[in-house]
Amino acid sequence: MPTILPIHDADDPRIAAYRDIRERDLVGRQGLFVAEGRVVLAMLVAATGYRAESVLVAAHRLDSVGDLVAPLADDVPVYAAEQPVLDAIAGFPMHRGILAIGRRVDPLSPDALLASLSGDADVLVLSGIANHDNMGGLFRNAAAFGVGAVLLDAECCDPLYRKAIRVSVGGVLKTPYATLARGDDPVALLERHGFAPLALTPGGATTLAEVVPGRRNAVLLGAEGPGLAADLIARARGVRIDMAAGFDSLNVATTGGIVLHHLAAGRHRSTSSS
Amino acid sequence: MPTILPIHDADDPRIAAYRDIRERDLVGRQGLFVAEGRVVLAMLVAATGYRAESVLVAAHRLDSVGDLVAPLADDVPVYAAEQPVLDAIAGFPMHRGILAIGRRVDPLSPDALLASLSGDADVLVLSGIANHDNMGGLFRNAAAFGVGAVLLDAECCDPLYRKAIRVSVGGVLKTPYATLARGDDPVALLERHGFAPLALTPGGATTLAEVVPGRRNAVLLGAEGPGLAADLIARARGVRIDMAAGFDSLNVATTGGIVLHHLAAGRHRSTSSS
Repeated sequence: MPTILPIHDADDPRIAAYRDIRERDLVGRQGLFVAEGRVVLAMLVAATGYRAESVLVAAHRLDSVGDLVAPLADDVPVYAAEQPVLDAIAGFPMHRGILAIGRRVDPLSPDALLASLSGDADVLVLSGIANHDNMGGLFRNAAAFGVGAVLLDAECCDPLYRKAIRVSVGGVLKTPYATLARGDDPVALLERHGFAPLALTPGGATTLAEVVPGRRNAVLLGAEGPGLAADLIARARGVRIDMAAGFDSLNVATTGGIVLHHLAAGRHRSTSSS
Repeated sequence: MPTILPIHDADDPRIAAYRDIRERDLVGRQGLFVAEGRVVLAMLVAATGYRAESVLVAAHRLDSVGDLVAPLADDVPVYAAEQPVLDAIAGFPMHRGILAIGRRVDPLSPDALLASLSGDADVLVLSGIANHDNMGGLFRNAAAFGVGAVLLDAECCDPLYRKAIRVSVGGVLKTPYATLARGDDPVALLERHGFAPLALTPGGATTLAEVVPGRRNAVLLGAEGPGLAADLIARARGVRIDMAAGFDSLNVATTGGIVLHHLAAGRHRSTSSS
């Protein structure tokens, strides 16, 4: 059970990591990130591969977060500040009233992460996803449909950016991910681990509805606009989503949700009929 | 072919409707709205049920919008301003460089709108969608999957809000919509027009993958959190999307995309096999 430590001054050095969180980004600085709100804090406390470094709550919310922080180690400080002090720390009205600093610990390499997935599994491979809303949305959908791992190429933004975590509703902390180095070959890696690569692209020869999911599927998605690189598409199975004439436009996170639902539903069907 | 009118002064009364567009919202004021960017302007020019009142472009983009505005009537002014003047008008750096004021004309009642849809059709019925991102995302998905109409209840936000139009990539201007009055009964209305109501809800008895689409389907979606009202669910077919244990959370626009894809793909299959 962690100790509650009152904070009376926004300049208190103990809460420096929480200062002006909207204006800056902890990511890249020692693997730290900001988690906001009850749901995300609960995910952080429960997560494998992440550790809560500290928690900062509005004093009037202390009672309601007791259960949530109880599993934390004794040495994890839980700071409590009156709402005006909290607002002054965060740099904006912090209505949610619950913040935490998390740390990512011992991330696996892409190879080790795929090796950790046995049996039936879907993975998501993201290329050039630079928008934090889309990144968060993709992780939310990955978590919702039980994706085993997400691989990011070197052009993707960091999923531990505050907004991406928030949009993911904590999904970033649920679904393990690994980042490919520039020049890594994702298709070779996937095939080595027995994942069939499906490249989502408007020119795909197969429509999604026709895809009968195998046991191990990899869904490759590129950014809206540029899409996936031609050499990736050429070495994967090209899959398209048929749309209405004159409006061939889906958000990339929505596309991910549609594909992952199709795979999950198809797997469920083949399981129940076997 | 409209006439090009140069604007040299951000205070010019002719472009008053464009002033400080980020700070305010034209919606509700005489049915006017702001369209931003090339793609949305193209949708506005082509749209049924909408009229471009005027266009404002960065002078250096004039050449590139010529084709786009050519179909507009002669009396629709196309204002051109140098970038600094344009930024001063909009109140922020207007990188897109293309704005238009649109007007919605002669919207149909919900009843007349459903009556206009003959044969196979899907409609979307939205309840309490108050977030402009979600509203825009839902219209983008509706347009992508060729939805015939969107019905909004009285608790929904206005889809013609600037951000909703932008997020929809112009889908708001593509898919016709109508707003129900408070107290209107959407289920009775849908059934009168032969639409089978599917209520998306985590407690639904049927999983989406089992739904065999009929010829006329209505997809009912409520806001994330509160969801649909119990009395609506009770009178519709309850449909759920199965998710991973411990993460039962999908964005409402993503949910709409998944359901509409399932219906469109199912219809296509039954058409091609008949």
